[in-house]
Order: sequence, then C-alpha cells, then structure tokens
Amino acid sequence: MSAEESATPAHRRDAVATREAILAAAVAEFTENGYARAGVRQIAERAGVTAMMINRYFGSKQGLFAEAVDRSFAPATVVGTERRGLTQTMARSLAESTAPGAERLDPFLLMLRCASDPAAVDIVRRGIEAHVGSRLAGLIGGDEADVRAQLGLALAAGTWLLRAVIGTEALAGADDDRLAELLASMLEPITSGDSR
Amino acid sequence: MSAEESATPAHRRDAVATREAILAAAVAEFTENGYARAGVRQIAERAGVTAMMINRYFGSKQGLFAEAVDRSFAPATVVGTERRGLTQTMARSLAESTAPGAERLDPFLLMLRCASDPAAVDIVRRGIEAHVGSRLAGLIGGDEADVRAQLGLALAAGTWLLRAVIGTEALAGADDDRLAELLASMLEPITSGDSR
Repeated sequence: MSAEESATPAHRRDAVATREAILAAAVAEFTENGYARAGVRQIAERAGVTAMMINRYFGSKQGLFAEAVDRSFAPATVVGTERRGLTQTMARSLAESTAPGAERLDPFLLMLRCASDPAAVDIVRRGIEAHVGSRLAGLIGGDEADVRAQLGLALAAGTWLLRAVIGTEALAGADDDRLAELLASMLEPITSGDSR
Repeated sequence: MSAEESATPAHRRDAVATREAILAAAVAEFTENGYARAGVRQIAERAGVTAMMINRYFGSKQGLFAEAVDRSFAPATVVGTERRGLTQTMARSLAESTAPGAERLDPFLLMLRCASDPAAVDIVRRGIEAHVGSRLAGLIGGDEADVRAQLGLALAAGTWLLRAVIGTEALAGADDDRLAELLASMLEPITSGDSR
C-alpha cells in the first residue's frame, strides 16, 4: 500500500492543493523566465512550499516543466472549441490577447521563452501537438488538417512574438479591430480548406 | 588625431579584418546561444582574438550585440528585394530555409533566441524595424504597409519557430512545395492590398 493510498481524505486534499499551488507557480515562473533561468527554489517560494516538496511531487525540474507545459497548454485559449466562426474567433482573440497591457501569462509566451532551450524543446513540442495543435487540426478537418493547424499556430506565435514580446511600433500601435481583420484574412485560406 | 586615423593602410586593413571576424563570430554565438548565454570569451575564441580586443572594438557585450544584430538583419534573405512576385518568393524561401537540415544561421533564429531577454529586446526591435520591417513595408506599399509587413514577418518568425526550432511533426515532415503554396495563400491578403 503506497503512502498516498493510506492517506486520509484530508491528507489527500492537502496533497492535491499543494500540487496545484506548485503547478501554478511553475507555469508563472517558466513563462516569465524561460526554462534555463527558472529556479526550483523560486517556484517553491511562489507556491509557499519547500524545494524538497517539489522534488517529492515532481521528481525533477524537467518533470515539473512537463506538467507545467501540460497545464498551460490544455485550456482552449486563442483557438477556441467551435468550428463555427473559427477564423474570426481566433483572429479576434489573438488581436486582443497581444494588445499592449493585456495579461501576459499565456501559453504562447511559455512556448517562446522555452522553445530554444535544448533541455525543454521536446517537452514543448509534445505539449503543442497534444493540445492546441490537435485541437485546431480537429476543428479544421480534412486531409491536411495537421499542417494547416501548425501554420495557424505559426501565425499566432509570430504575432505574439512581434507584438507582445518585441513590441514593434506598427503592431503595438495597431487598432485591434483592423488587426483582427488582417489576421482573419491570413487565417481564412488555411481554415477554410480552399487554398489549393 | 585618433589612433585609427594615424594607422598605416596595412593597420587599417587589419583593423577592418579583425572587426569583421569578431562580428561574424558574434552573430554565430548569439544565434546559437541567445543573448544571456552567449559569452564574450567564446566569441573571442571563435574569432581568434582576445576578449580585450572585443572590448576595444565594441565597448561592451551590448554594444557588440547591437552591431551583430545590424549585421545579421541587413541582408535581404526571406523577404527579397523585388515587388514582383513578392508573395511567391517569400513563401518559397521561407519553406526552403526552414526545411529540416537547412542552414540554421538565420536572422529569424537570432531574433527568436534573443527576443525574450530584457537586456536585448530593444536592440532586436530596432534591428527589425530598420532592416527587414522597413524593406518589406517598402515592397508592400500603401497606407498600411508597416502593419502588413509586420504580420508577414510574424508568419515568417512563427514558421521558423514551429518548423525549424521546435520541429513539430506536421511541419518538419511537410512537403516544401505544398508548404510554400499554403504560406503564399496566407501572405497574399497582406501583400496584395485587397484584404479589406
């Protein structure tokens, strides 16, 4: 019988809450600082636990990162969940979420900050493919759904990079409505299936 | 009279060659490792000079980075130099330069690896706006040229990120010709000026 199975309900609830607190802190720390510069000690401080607790729950920094990526990429943010209006919804939410002053704790930011780290890239790739990639491919449908979905994500990631991270003047100063129109015009050929 | 003005032609030639060697080494080092992890000592070793020489020529790591960004972003790579066939040229060269096994020393990679570093982001932004951004805007023309150009770059940067850096299966395994067609269909609305 494992320690977890023998735990009382109260202990189990504590364990779940601790795990959640560590994961939330890890998502924030990896998103802000990237994989290499994120510190397990800093994550422990943010979560109000000891670094030893993190090791006990997640084994290693890489193990914690894998679960943080999973947690960050799982919710349907920019892509949404419905086929109807997919292009407009994605364009609009991309324009709004990259606007100056918008909340910056986004899966795209986590991806950008961690992707060029050799120790993190495989985990990031699996996270994209398992979550936002397969969700968008499912909404697009058809033979080429996967490659089309990845091109949609490429536009989203690049818009995040140039507007929210680098902040070029033209994009940072762009009107959100007009930007959403332009993004929709670029997404339409790959979401509508008529680009041959 | 400065030391440089008083130098003989042979000395001046040496100074130019040394500067070039340092810059080439800096572009390679910053592209491979990002701003924070790039080392002035490693750049000196790559260039076959002492770290003191780098200080004498460029003042600081940030000063060297600014000139390396300028050097890396100045050539017309993905964007090209002609209005005619702009969409096709850009789509084709983007598909080819991100293909598995292609040469990876690209300005987009330098941008991706350095953009999320607060000490480097202003230099990266100025480099984009001064070179590839204004070149592409000039080719697109019209009222909205700047924002359209930045959206073209967003697609290019995102394709670099997902195909060449992260290497998702769908993009890494995609046929270059078909990928170029899909990219062209996304670029067309912002390069042709008829997306209203």
